[in-house]
Amino acid sequence: MRWSSFYHTASRVFNDCPSWAKTVVVCSVISSGGLVAYCDAKPEYVNHESKKKKVVVLGTGWAGTSFLKNMKSNSYDIHVVSPRNYFAFTPLLPSVTCGTVEARSVVEPIRSITRKSGVNIHFSEAECYKIDNKNNKVYCRASKDKKLGGQEDFSIDYDYLVIAMGGRSNTFNTPGVQEHAHFLKEVDEALKIRHSVVDLFERASLPSLPVEEKKKLLSFVVVGGGPTGVEFAAELHDFVLEDMAKLYPSLKDYVKITLLEAGDHILNMFDKRITEFAEQKFARDGIDVRLGSMVVKVGENEITAKERASGQVVSIPHGMVVWSTGIGARPEVVEFMKQLGQVNRRALVTDEWLRVEGSDNIYALGDCATINQRRVMEDIAVIFSKADKNNSGKLDLKEFKDVVGDIIERYPQVDIYLKKNQMRDMASLLKKSQESNIIVDIEYFKEALSKVDSQMKNLPATAQVAAQQGVYLADCFNRMEECEKYPEGPLRFRGVGRHRFRPFRYRHLGQFAPLGGEQTAAQLPGDWISIGHSTQWLWYSVYTSKQVSWRTRFLVVGDWGRRFIFGRDSSKI
Amino acid sequence: MRWSSFYHTASRVFNDCPSWAKTVVVCSVISSGGLVAYCDAKPEYVNHESKKKKVVVLGTGWAGTSFLKNMKSNSYDIHVVSPRNYFAFTPLLPSVTCGTVEARSVVEPIRSITRKSGVNIHFSEAECYKIDNKNNKVYCRASKDKKLGGQEDFSIDYDYLVIAMGGRSNTFNTPGVQEHAHFLKEVDEALKIRHSVVDLFERASLPSLPVEEKKKLLSFVVVGGGPTGVEFAAELHDFVLEDMAKLYPSLKDYVKITLLEAGDHILNMFDKRITEFAEQKFARDGIDVRLGSMVVKVGENEITAKERASGQVVSIPHGMVVWSTGIGARPEVVEFMKQLGQVNRRALVTDEWLRVEGSDNIYALGDCATINQRRVMEDIAVIFSKADKNNSGKLDLKEFKDVVGDIIERYPQVDIYLKKNQMRDMASLLKKSQESNIIVDIEYFKEALSKVDSQMKNLPATAQVAAQQGVYLADCFNRMEECEKYPEGPLRFRGVGRHRFRPFRYRHLGQFAPLGGEQTAAQLPGDWISIGHSTQWLWYSVYTSKQVSWRTRFLVVGDWGRRFIFGRDSSKI
Repeated sequence: MRWSSFYHTASRVFNDCPSWAKTVVVCSVISSGGLVAYCDAKPEYVNHESKKKKVVVLGTGWAGTSFLKNMKSNSYDIHVVSPRNYFAFTPLLPSVTCGTVEARSVVEPIRSITRKSGVNIHFSEAECYKIDNKNNKVYCRASKDKKLGGQEDFSIDYDYLVIAMGGRSNTFNTPGVQEHAHFLKEVDEALKIRHSVVDLFERASLPSLPVEEKKKLLSFVVVGGGPTGVEFAAELHDFVLEDMAKLYPSLKDYVKITLLEAGDHILNMFDKRITEFAEQKFARDGIDVRLGSMVVKVGENEITAKERASGQVVSIPHGMVVWSTGIGARPEVVEFMKQLGQVNRRALVTDEWLRVEGSDNIYALGDCATINQRRVMEDIAVIFSKADKNNSGKLDLKEFKDVVGDIIERYPQVDIYLKKNQMRDMASLLKKSQESNIIVDIEYFKEALSKVDSQMKNLPATAQVAAQQGVYLADCFNRMEECEKYPEGPLRFRGVGRHRFRPFRYRHLGQFAPLGGEQTAAQLPGDWISIGHSTQWLWYSVYTSKQVSWRTRFLVVGDWGRRFIFGRDSSKI
Repeated sequence: MRWSSFYHTASRVFNDCPSWAKTVVVCSVISSGGLVAYCDAKPEYVNHESKKKKVVVLGTGWAGTSFLKNMKSNSYDIHVVSPRNYFAFTPLLPSVTCGTVEARSVVEPIRSITRKSGVNIHFSEAECYKIDNKNNKVYCRASKDKKLGGQEDFSIDYDYLVIAMGGRSNTFNTPGVQEHAHFLKEVDEALKIRHSVVDLFERASLPSLPVEEKKKLLSFVVVGGGPTGVEFAAELHDFVLEDMAKLYPSLKDYVKITLLEAGDHILNMFDKRITEFAEQKFARDGIDVRLGSMVVKVGENEITAKERASGQVVSIPHGMVVWSTGIGARPEVVEFMKQLGQVNRRALVTDEWLRVEGSDNIYALGDCATINQRRVMEDIAVIFSKADKNNSGKLDLKEFKDVVGDIIERYPQVDIYLKKNQMRDMASLLKKSQESNIIVDIEYFKEALSKVDSQMKNLPATAQVAAQQGVYLADCFNRMEECEKYPEGPLRFRGVGRHRFRPFRYRHLGQFAPLGGEQTAAQLPGDWISIGHSTQWLWYSVYTSKQVSWRTRFLVVGDWGRRFIFGRDSSKI
């Protein structure tokens, strides 16, 4: 009895401990070689009774979650609204489609993430269907199929609104896509694909089917040669080769994977050495890559594409089409853009501080937004006038150097231009000789800076950008009071004083493209590329470190190990 | 380059190895404390060109899978038909409902199981909708929603048919159950419950809801006080207490779990000490156990039950009802029973060799079947006559002893009766003194054996029974030729010679009832009961050993560890 009541008490105490305490106990029990799980829990939030600003965050994707994780200031009451109560590690979704990694391993409840932050954060599972920026209010609705007797709607007032709703799969209005194709943007979509793949194999193995029908069912068509489409095609190929071929030996020769890309190459955003390698590898693997193929229609049993080169229209019978061509704006965001007078833009337009144009307390980040970087040439006159402190009508080197830092900070395209043209600094732009004192007038100034704007590029809609924006914005919020008093941003060229914050600056850390067969391509800054098996291990380590919690880290690594030993499961659940 | 091409080659060779080889390599790499996974693969099946009998197996549950796993003879071509392409470890389904264990960890593809057996086994994912026993044919249909252009139907001829289709949840025709309640018999039903539980918490946390609505949403009603209902109620309680209370702290006091049982006690099939303990534990845990409550109706928002004692009708508001009251026959089985003239029976009737009554080449096992054990009193005259070798009209001890073994084998109720009445052997039944030669006539014989039939009980519809039946039947099939020549069964009392096989004899190994809070009750043969934390560890070890593959064993143990360290996930996927 003594042991059992000790056990009972110890068990209860143990269960009430935070994860870190539990793991310390477990680690001291588990011998060497066991898993080490260290969970960095923060102390509980202490409620200060000061007047807090109300921040409403819409979305629980990369941008929203990154923002929430990095909020440390107790000056805000934060209310998160999203139809999805978890964060999903989207780069691993192609791995989920074939069971390399389980869906549960790549998701983390948003409540669990925000609980650890120590800041007062509420969450409501609902969709925001209307933003009333004039009255600082958002209108939300829990899903329509909930039996709440009409109580699904509510509104929330805000002092600051952070829109991080993301985008949605873009069909380009191609007929039949919505009805007959699978998307690969959310966890439930990845699970649907997984279910369908096994279902197609089971159907194809029915004794009543002729061979032509089996081949049609086992024809997988992937539309979109970007990283998602390429990675999915590679995963599917490995799944068929390594797992399905053993369980459905009579069917493996009927499987065909086709990848349709409208452009001239797959992985267009990568270095061409990577593109070439990928295309050759896919050719060796038997994946039919059709470049310059624009899909015109998706039917229940076949997909029709027009070949740009020949103008020919080709029909491919299919068992499944996976559509991964990129994203477009969500209807709620389009609606809000109209309200603000933002028309004909692909996403919600913000300034370089992620603040929505036309508003002073609404921010937007991630896939739903795009930064409207001001052009140097738009502001050239005011820049010159700001720099020309003695109003002489001419700029000498000293005056110029005083504003160079602010110019580069305010207009990041300048820096990109300098690097691309291998110029050491802005002074080189002025193209004078090694004189100690360069003097230029405004016309010369304009001429010299006329090309920097050519380096302006919109930021890609990637997880990396969204995550960095979330960190940046949280940092601004955390230090808002301080920066109101002591602004740290660049000079206001069209106003007085300085901006409160430095503008958002994206730092590209590289990108991966897994190509199957334990080979990955990586492109890192500085034109450094790496392709092959060792890069696959780099991919494993980076993705392990990027997991949002120790639980998912543990599970993802466990899944990779499990797949290595036991293969992928093909139970149709 | 040399390393990378070596790696590439090694990787390819490694991937082509069977699991056992992979694990040997991995083990030699992983240091002490790593996981040991030993997979017992069998050599590939060699096709013999002899004429094989065609066996069709309907179902991939405990009975069907156990049969397939134990088939070793190469004399058969086996074709398995089931709408489910995997085996599910159903005793762990209550653990799946709350995320203690993941769904993927308790399933194994049937193709994977049969591949290891070394016998020629095909699988088709379809439903059998008609059995034509006169023509030895089954008619099957792949699911209706498949786009196969009318090719979903096919038929299969058989020499032997094994029906192992299981049962379905029995609603007892209670109105509203099908529309508004959750069942807990299949993996997808367990996942639906999991999704719904989190959904109810999310809805209850919306700011627009009054407290009464929150309480209604968080009222969970479980119908059925058997092991499944009790285990689910216990799991749900632990999930709320250990995980949801942390993420939804404002809601934990609104949660109510009610367990409705029509009988006088929960866990009726267990020893009353276990029943008592369970009822007290649930009372301490705050689970409202209402005994003698018969559900009369399930509505969208409330469930109505009649209390047998008072006759009062009570309505309980609910957010979710889980119905786990037992099973009934599937429509296809009922249809087949009508064909055979079996009416008013709860399941397909077979003889003691699992052969369907009215057929000589159709077998039925598991939940869909029930053994029609012949009564001793039905055959008393022929037994006596068979025993009375010298036709003297009287039985002496020696003649009696010659048939005792066969009687006990043929009529297992005799053995149960002897044990219950603490009689040493059958001779004690004859109640004579210690004379060396007992002589009885038929009237005395009838009188002595008249009570043994009172010990006849139908076998319960459990996984244990189904699994043992599968093993038994496979053993019969494996040795069919041999036993045709040299029958090893008991004497045919109503015929000539011996039966080919011994009848099926169920050996009860015990049963568990997990009660939550790391406590389980176990009842083992010989009236041995054990309740508490140590029994929980016994439960862990038994269920680990009973897993159908090393993969699921690894995953289930991993899940228990993961839950211990990180808790259960509540992402609503």
